[in-house]
Amino acid sequence: MSNELAIKQWLKENRARGARFLQLLVQENSTRGNESSAQAIIIEKCRQLGLSLDIWEIGGDGLMQHPVYCCDRKSFGGNPNVVAVLKGSGGGKSIILNGHIDVVPVGDERNWKHDPFSGQIECGKLYGRGATDMKGGTVALLMAIESLIATGIKLKGDVIYQSVIEEESGGAGTLAAVLRGYTADGAIIPEPTNMKIFPKQQGSMWFRIKVKGRAAHGGTRYEGVSAIEKALIVIDSLQRLEKERNRKIVDPLFDKVPIPIPINIGKINSGEWPSSVPDVAVIEGRMGVAPDETITAAQQEMTNCLLELNEQDAWFQENPLQIEWFGGRWLPGNLNSDHPLMQTLSECFADIKGVDPIIEASPWGTDGGILSNVGDTPVVVFGPGVTETAHDANEHIVLEEMFLASEIIALTLLKWCVVCEENTAKEDQ
Amino acid sequence: MSNELAIKQWLKENRARGARFLQLLVQENSTRGNESSAQAIIIEKCRQLGLSLDIWEIGGDGLMQHPVYCCDRKSFGGNPNVVAVLKGSGGGKSIILNGHIDVVPVGDERNWKHDPFSGQIECGKLYGRGATDMKGGTVALLMAIESLIATGIKLKGDVIYQSVIEEESGGAGTLAAVLRGYTADGAIIPEPTNMKIFPKQQGSMWFRIKVKGRAAHGGTRYEGVSAIEKALIVIDSLQRLEKERNRKIVDPLFDKVPIPIPINIGKINSGEWPSSVPDVAVIEGRMGVAPDETITAAQQEMTNCLLELNEQDAWFQENPLQIEWFGGRWLPGNLNSDHPLMQTLSECFADIKGVDPIIEASPWGTDGGILSNVGDTPVVVFGPGVTETAHDANEHIVLEEMFLASEIIALTLLKWCVVCEENTAKEDQ
Repeated sequence: MSNELAIKQWLKENRARGARFLQLLVQENSTRGNESSAQAIIIEKCRQLGLSLDIWEIGGDGLMQHPVYCCDRKSFGGNPNVVAVLKGSGGGKSIILNGHIDVVPVGDERNWKHDPFSGQIECGKLYGRGATDMKGGTVALLMAIESLIATGIKLKGDVIYQSVIEEESGGAGTLAAVLRGYTADGAIIPEPTNMKIFPKQQGSMWFRIKVKGRAAHGGTRYEGVSAIEKALIVIDSLQRLEKERNRKIVDPLFDKVPIPIPINIGKINSGEWPSSVPDVAVIEGRMGVAPDETITAAQQEMTNCLLELNEQDAWFQENPLQIEWFGGRWLPGNLNSDHPLMQTLSECFADIKGVDPIIEASPWGTDGGILSNVGDTPVVVFGPGVTETAHDANEHIVLEEMFLASEIIALTLLKWCVVCEENTAKEDQ
Repeated sequence: MSNELAIKQWLKENRARGARFLQLLVQENSTRGNESSAQAIIIEKCRQLGLSLDIWEIGGDGLMQHPVYCCDRKSFGGNPNVVAVLKGSGGGKSIILNGHIDVVPVGDERNWKHDPFSGQIECGKLYGRGATDMKGGTVALLMAIESLIATGIKLKGDVIYQSVIEEESGGAGTLAAVLRGYTADGAIIPEPTNMKIFPKQQGSMWFRIKVKGRAAHGGTRYEGVSAIEKALIVIDSLQRLEKERNRKIVDPLFDKVPIPIPINIGKINSGEWPSSVPDVAVIEGRMGVAPDETITAAQQEMTNCLLELNEQDAWFQENPLQIEWFGGRWLPGNLNSDHPLMQTLSECFADIKGVDPIIEASPWGTDGGILSNVGDTPVVVFGPGVTETAHDANEHIVLEEMFLASEIIALTLLKWCVVCEENTAKEDQ
């Protein structure tokens, strides 16, 4: 039996185990600060597979003083990063398979039809927080690795599996893994791309703009300066900046995307009393960063936009706008579409699905930005599940897609890391 | 000695007592729900003056079911309204002298240079919450009454002094007094007009507009509908409505007022997460009401403005804007400038100051709206102190102005209520 066929057959026969494994993972609430029990399941699985384990609590100056480090978490104790290596025989290309174990909060539980940590399976879909983002992807990775081991296939290149914390809050887990020395000739991150292949990812970061006004009684509002009215000027400028920035995006990967790098005004708060003129307005939002752009360059464009307002507007001359970059920050990813890893993954996709994959740029950042920018590792984001359900109630994954992703990734490993010559898959007994 | 001269002299000789009385009143914190101790001082003073006292806790269905009642206070127990009458001999015109005893909160105490309830006197100014709004006015009224009694002048018309609660929160105290039967041929409310005379007052009420959006991830913000962007459309419409409404104001009393009846956007809150498209925005503000306009008519104009948006905008067609009239509501006041009470007060002003008074329309409502609209009592607002300091830190009053106001009001009482013929002021002994 060919290696490919052996893997396909093993994966087909082990679907129930795969679904059960995802269920176990989803049933462990691994929101920020609570990652340990889900990591324990990962560790146990990697141990059973005989992988070389590296389990450590992230932290320390090397990480926390790093310019890319962006995290407000005080302690990582008890919630380790996990890296498990399937060592190759040498001479092949190495690959990192990266999944994050942290999930976002469940939100209002009343909007869920099942308990968010039930892992309930219904009509081929598994429900629960993290099912799509991205425990489904994680199971796809581990099943791919297990399929190699179970069928006795040996690779030349190393397969470096990572289960990291903190992706949802800025990527400190993956940054810690990079700084610990884990880089490779390529990486796949099975975030929910709905089986599209994303060589490029939109980066992003959060901003907070403080707009000053001058208080007055609402009945004589002309004696004050409304921070809300002044904020409207800022919003208008940000909207024009967004247009300008997006006009410059010519990459065909963004052809179908209405706004490749949006500036999202996510929050505005101003005023404390209906009959007072508000004296301060705070705008918060998310600025998209182009794949070929640096965080710093994007920040500079917004800063310049505000500096311009500070020059043009008499009020802002006296009361300059203040910008703060706070909270989340996700580096963009920027792999060429013709990179060998893209070619290999696309070929495997076409072999199995019978059609060419859709290749796009993602509208959100992943840990891939850190892996490629800091770890100099070419990253492709490709995985089962759809973003729409990711951070919402009733998050779920179509199990069939998870198995398909696993198969495509397993075949990619065969080609990328190269199978040892003396070795073919053992017959199933 | 003429009655006028006797009053002038008495007031001159009793300045220190007047200042001390204001100090005592300011030292009693009479924020909402805490009016009792300041009212106790008022009651004691009225008792010493031999006035007929009516002290009662407001409430009951007659008040609380009244269409003009606008109050969210649960209980009035222990914090009474006070009315004290100096009964006339008959045949003269009656007058209500109305002051509110409630004061607004002190805000951030760190912004005060003295304790807000110190009543500290410095360079002829008395500092403290309520000094200007309007315990200073209250003392001006009580000194005017006392000057009549002390000099033995008897009037034909009744002088009805009122110390009411709840002015700052919608006027339930004055409404209760009207419903208890207290109306008159005229009324003076010594709110801080900076010694200008206001025959007309801008009314106002609060509104809350809810604007819906549709949530989405900020990286694909085009998949959502930003409630903030939709709120901008609403604000733009309100700004146009304000222009239209003010274009219609032709009363010369408003000639020097840039915006006679402003629509103040006092608050906006939208969004919970920088990288989400906000799905709801709440705008709160204060709508000014013209002196010759009803609250209902003004509300209808804003409602129509929103209904128009609900028709024109495809999103609002499906997700109509909602408006709520909540919290404060102050009826406008609308006395003709040539009303006899205006003439009398203006003459007394000119007699004492040597110049004609400035006659304007006030940019804020007072309890005068209720007194004139519900109690059918002609109201003039005139008093010492400036609005600017009223609700702010370091509220203060120039004592000299308070004494001057007292003198003008006392002389107005003589002319309005008419001095009994047999009676002239006793000589000071």
